[in-house]
Amino acid sequence: MANAAYRVALLQLRCSPDPEENLLRAAERVREAARQGADLVCLPELFRTQYFCQRQEAQFFDLAEPIPGPATELLARVALEEKVVVLASLFERRAPGLYHNTAALLERDGSLAGIYRKMHIPDDPLYYEKYYFAPGDLGFRAFHTSVGAIGALVCWDQWYPEAARIVALQGTGLLLYPTAIGWHPAEKEQHGAAQYEAWQIVQRSHAIANGVYVAAVNRVGLEHGDIRGNRAPGEGIEFWGGSFLADPFGRILAQAPHDRETILMAEIDPAHLEEVRRNWPFLRDRRVDSYAPIANRFLDPAPTEANPDRHPGQRPDKDSDQHVR
Amino acid sequence: MANAAYRVALLQLRCSPDPEENLLRAAERVREAARQGADLVCLPELFRTQYFCQRQEAQFFDLAEPIPGPATELLARVALEEKVVVLASLFERRAPGLYHNTAALLERDGSLAGIYRKMHIPDDPLYYEKYYFAPGDLGFRAFHTSVGAIGALVCWDQWYPEAARIVALQGTGLLLYPTAIGWHPAEKEQHGAAQYEAWQIVQRSHAIANGVYVAAVNRVGLEHGDIRGNRAPGEGIEFWGGSFLADPFGRILAQAPHDRETILMAEIDPAHLEEVRRNWPFLRDRRVDSYAPIANRFLDPAPTEANPDRHPGQRPDKDSDQHVR
Repeated sequence: MANAAYRVALLQLRCSPDPEENLLRAAERVREAARQGADLVCLPELFRTQYFCQRQEAQFFDLAEPIPGPATELLARVALEEKVVVLASLFERRAPGLYHNTAALLERDGSLAGIYRKMHIPDDPLYYEKYYFAPGDLGFRAFHTSVGAIGALVCWDQWYPEAARIVALQGTGLLLYPTAIGWHPAEKEQHGAAQYEAWQIVQRSHAIANGVYVAAVNRVGLEHGDIRGNRAPGEGIEFWGGSFLADPFGRILAQAPHDRETILMAEIDPAHLEEVRRNWPFLRDRRVDSYAPIANRFLDPAPTEANPDRHPGQRPDKDSDQHVR
Repeated sequence: MANAAYRVALLQLRCSPDPEENLLRAAERVREAARQGADLVCLPELFRTQYFCQRQEAQFFDLAEPIPGPATELLARVALEEKVVVLASLFERRAPGLYHNTAALLERDGSLAGIYRKMHIPDDPLYYEKYYFAPGDLGFRAFHTSVGAIGALVCWDQWYPEAARIVALQGTGLLLYPTAIGWHPAEKEQHGAAQYEAWQIVQRSHAIANGVYVAAVNRVGLEHGDIRGNRAPGEGIEFWGGSFLADPFGRILAQAPHDRETILMAEIDPAHLEEVRRNWPFLRDRRVDSYAPIANRFLDPAPTEANPDRHPGQRPDKDSDQHVR
């Protein structure tokens, strides 16, 4: 990774029913962040629209765009003019009937440096993403940018330590998580605080376990998935904002409020990262000889007719070892 | 896993210079916990002695004992008499010159149901464990006990999400971490709170990511690694106690103080675990096709003379995909 410290801006935005307006406002905010000194700017997940996945409607595939396409072209121009690296989360149209939830990295020379297609796709009440997005097929990857190596992962990916680890092992110093997550209004009072806390803790743990900076960039506002006046039925989702940056020991360096747009600025310092990792040398002691079983859906406790074989990574001598008497 | 709820007791203990006394006191505490209603009791890491790894002395290998051996025999008797399952962390003598940091599971019928040998071994100032303990060779494993399937991992393992995941995938509902961790007195004021918080967060994240209960069981007290009057030089380690149990959404259900012995009781409820996992179905969406790279020490960013090959799991088409323009 590069050795110089740099400044990252997390753009916590509100999204309107008008996709064009959202794009133009996002571009304006990127310029603003760059003028405040940001070297790298991260936009929230699918910032061009309200979160349309609250219901399944085939017409919303019209919202998707190719990459490169209109959004990356505009943002690449901004990146070039403001000399800033931009991570933009977009609804990618790859082919008729094939769409992805994709993060695009625009370099400060105006080039499209790479894309990441969201690997873990949720599907829960009001988050019907499996309908819209094919799972990513590019794996977990680092972007070697002009500010340093960074990782881009998207929203639901944040619950998976495997994703963070594989990106971190590629030498990244910062993991960016564009996100769209919020409260069901009926659940907020009872579960809201615990949900936000769990979301933040699991991401802080990626910072700790891997010795990297971690940033989550969320949207704010109560949304009904309004696309040019076409609203989802129901109470909507209250996106909880609370974007934050954690240092390589999981400490919160900056955190946005739950209800307001924010340009959250923070510094990424490779020297601090190195200091933390020297004091807590977790990478040194990994048992890479023993992690193969992680690539299984489940490790069923005993052979059954449906599953007569032992799971991979379980050696035949293990069962006998277990009973040492 | 078994379907009935059960009660776990986490025994946060202080350790004296006398290994015999520590064993007898631990046995007494196990009885006490069982009489308070515990079905499963977990002891702290290496509870038979003060933490001797503060320095390297060959004579301390005399502290190791075979498994089964004196400690497991006594505790097995207690387990049988009190009808309680016991997880005991011991210094295992496996062969001359071959020692492990081992957790032994004693069933309530008095049998030794299995052992786990600590896989991740630390080695840092005042924690010279690589000198004393050979890395475990039994892998990450579930114990299918009479109260349900549980996982046993030890101390440094707690920083590794791979270990928690692999044990959880075996159907365990509870991960137990016998631990010996504390503050360097000179660092406590500046870093103490952040260190405890990081330690707790990374373990709460295992609960969240895997939908399991997680318990850490630590010792308390300022120790100089005193073994029958043979003390390590220096200021010692202030073991920070703070044993806790987190539920499958990472919420702290019970937490012990930093400075006192405690029998911390809590309930493990498989119905609650199932409820949490249904609402946050992380296991459903794992990309098991994409986790193979995790079994590498590092994923070097570019081929070099020393490392001419791509890393496993990186397909040749990936680099070309990354540059989509």
